[in-house]
Amino acid sequence: MNRRNFIKNSSLASLGMLSTRAGSQEKQSENTKRTDKLNIGFIGVGLRGRDHLELALLRPDCNVSAICDTDPLSIKEAQKLAEKAGKGELKVFTGEDRAYLKMLEMKSLDAVIIATPWLWHTEMAIAAMKAGKYTGVEVSGGFSLDECWQLVNTHEATGSHLFFLENVCYRRDIMAVLNMVRKDLFGELIHMECGYQHDLRNVKFNDGKQPYGGGVEFGEKGFSEAKWRTTQSLNRNGDLYPTHGIGPVSKMLNINSGNRFLYLTSTASKAKGLHEYIVNHPQGGNSHPNATIEWKLGDVVTSVLKTINGESIVITHDTNLPRPYSLGFRVQGTKGLWMDVNSSIYTEGLNDKHKWQPAKEFLEKYDHQLWKKYENDARGAGHGGMDFFLLHEFVECAKANASASIDVYDAATWMAITPLSEQSIATGSMPQPFPDFTRGRWTERTNGFAVEQ
Amino acid sequence: MNRRNFIKNSSLASLGMLSTRAGSQEKQSENTKRTDKLNIGFIGVGLRGRDHLELALLRPDCNVSAICDTDPLSIKEAQKLAEKAGKGELKVFTGEDRAYLKMLEMKSLDAVIIATPWLWHTEMAIAAMKAGKYTGVEVSGGFSLDECWQLVNTHEATGSHLFFLENVCYRRDIMAVLNMVRKDLFGELIHMECGYQHDLRNVKFNDGKQPYGGGVEFGEKGFSEAKWRTTQSLNRNGDLYPTHGIGPVSKMLNINSGNRFLYLTSTASKAKGLHEYIVNHPQGGNSHPNATIEWKLGDVVTSVLKTINGESIVITHDTNLPRPYSLGFRVQGTKGLWMDVNSSIYTEGLNDKHKWQPAKEFLEKYDHQLWKKYENDARGAGHGGMDFFLLHEFVECAKANASASIDVYDAATWMAITPLSEQSIATGSMPQPFPDFTRGRWTERTNGFAVEQ
Repeated sequence: MNRRNFIKNSSLASLGMLSTRAGSQEKQSENTKRTDKLNIGFIGVGLRGRDHLELALLRPDCNVSAICDTDPLSIKEAQKLAEKAGKGELKVFTGEDRAYLKMLEMKSLDAVIIATPWLWHTEMAIAAMKAGKYTGVEVSGGFSLDECWQLVNTHEATGSHLFFLENVCYRRDIMAVLNMVRKDLFGELIHMECGYQHDLRNVKFNDGKQPYGGGVEFGEKGFSEAKWRTTQSLNRNGDLYPTHGIGPVSKMLNINSGNRFLYLTSTASKAKGLHEYIVNHPQGGNSHPNATIEWKLGDVVTSVLKTINGESIVITHDTNLPRPYSLGFRVQGTKGLWMDVNSSIYTEGLNDKHKWQPAKEFLEKYDHQLWKKYENDARGAGHGGMDFFLLHEFVECAKANASASIDVYDAATWMAITPLSEQSIATGSMPQPFPDFTRGRWTERTNGFAVEQ
Repeated sequence: MNRRNFIKNSSLASLGMLSTRAGSQEKQSENTKRTDKLNIGFIGVGLRGRDHLELALLRPDCNVSAICDTDPLSIKEAQKLAEKAGKGELKVFTGEDRAYLKMLEMKSLDAVIIATPWLWHTEMAIAAMKAGKYTGVEVSGGFSLDECWQLVNTHEATGSHLFFLENVCYRRDIMAVLNMVRKDLFGELIHMECGYQHDLRNVKFNDGKQPYGGGVEFGEKGFSEAKWRTTQSLNRNGDLYPTHGIGPVSKMLNINSGNRFLYLTSTASKAKGLHEYIVNHPQGGNSHPNATIEWKLGDVVTSVLKTINGESIVITHDTNLPRPYSLGFRVQGTKGLWMDVNSSIYTEGLNDKHKWQPAKEFLEKYDHQLWKKYENDARGAGHGGMDFFLLHEFVECAKANASASIDVYDAATWMAITPLSEQSIATGSMPQPFPDFTRGRWTERTNGFAVEQ
């Protein structure tokens, strides 16, 4: 297995090349411990948590010492992974919602990764930071601006770092395009588009036994994400999941490092897709109890952001309708643009006049240093390999107890899009200003994310 | 020449199939004249006016009797076309800005086509309607809501019809997709995208001698559109040209016929493209007088509309940056979607799961009756043939003195996007409500546009 060999044989120190630790300036005097072997625990070992767990178990610089989940089945599957990796027994915390607090009391634990339902992210991340753990938390939209502030405030008060686990920042084409941006291929950036356009109907509904499809059940009767994610579509109307799009775009636009979001407007279409899915499903139909539900989440939610440096950004959230998967990226500047939906690039001077060119040759030419070097090692890791780089970067930052490459300010800013978008929709698309979670430090911070060396 | 033979040999009456006369209900008692041969005059015979003129000269059911322009060169070129068509001498009105008023005094004139700089459209259209002419007016954005109301009010007061000459409504793929919409291929419509993404830098600037490029001059020193269109980018910030996108989308969504626009928000990016063009052009440079100009038009303007039936619509205006031409259409419903940028369709059940399918086979299968029948005749007409159908439809409606297929309510509603977008941008993207130009009649009107028979 390539990744395993890589981890065993290569010099891990050299991997630090990706770690960039954008200039967070809060005091960290009391928090300068550094380790070569990271004791790591997992809060939440459902499908997503086990993706990370599996990668961590392969690393000789990680000692997976504890897991926590309320679901016995998930615990069992996680234990199987540890056994398979020959890592012996894991300490297990379970039995009650807040069993994770017991786990956080473990002095030996350096870092935790939180991969639980969205409603738990902030509470757990705050508790982990307060317990002095290097905290990785899976992505989600926020529920309130206050929650975003709490994350920032806790980080600043404790000196504990929060790493926001946005994997698309490490997608191969995204990193190549980030390179193109930095090498001025598109000139000065003007307009960006991104989103989360993913037909989640068979994630939101299943038969209560399998994670994807087979029925129209959710909540108590659902399984895996359908247990908790679907009620968000039932009750909320906004961009519920903005980070896969806005993460990469923010890194290209230097958000919180010389740039910031000023405001957004959001507009939601009507909500028809989930109802249609239920009534047309073989296990559903017009007489199914779920057929009368009125869903609040508009099928397509469009948000438009403006930055203080003058760029516009369109984010599309589209998870209730039949469609091919697409994050809908567009990166456009004074010299040209990339679009991922047609896999094409146009750059003035390089292309035939007004003709698209396949992005492929550009993506190869500007392939990021890191991907070029470690592509074999990332092979097989989740989501096309990007999960390998994400966990690797988390571990390297955590071992050095360094500022996170995707930090608490990124997390707060990107998560804020969700409540701002809800507020805008609730008020007929009124513009909503972004808080400056850096409290002005964006004027001095620099963007060191994945800088090539 | 195919078109010529077609016009000579085919029964023109049968062509009326496209005419649809959506249910405008104002009184037309005093205005029921009908003619088999249309006496038609042209106000504005620049490049665009001559496109229409050339097509009209081919038609045996049109008698081009007069032209008007302030530019001697344009008059001369128009006269050449008439001579070439063997149509003898045209009556010419010129010499002063309002020479067109003299032309409108011609009792023999049934109809006029207005293709002048944007600032003149409404004044001329109002005068033409007041003179009792069947009035075709080229597309543009509006300058004020009042101007849109004036068009509506004049139509209702005079009974004269206004035909808004939006040619993209007749584009072959657009008409096929309109068919798909009507045949329920996409289910209930949810979300639309469209725009005007056209690198106009060499239209906005030229050398004062040729219409496209060769220099960075505009205004008095420019030629053709650069003479008047560029000052719009200099002074205004909004979606200056929304109709090519919103026209087709409106016809698919039955706007003003059972549906209407509720409000929009607009956000403009910074304005960098035109400055970059000037300073990097071989005839420009940093010391060129135009290098210090501050342009107000954001390079990319994004507007999001909401309809009373719950659909969302994104319109993109992008004319200052290097890019391939694209109107960026997306038509999305509960069963699937079409996008033109990747020429693809996805429809649930018909496609491989979550894989795009080339649009080509769908566009052929759903090709509009009219295009199937007359494609050879349209060949060679402007803009891929759509100009043939546009003029044809105008002439048929005018001969019957019937309600226009694209009428004054369409014109007012689509033109209103421009001032609303300017107001939204000027107020930090505040939502702007649309006037209901039908005064409630949208609740009873039906959409007869290009209904197949």
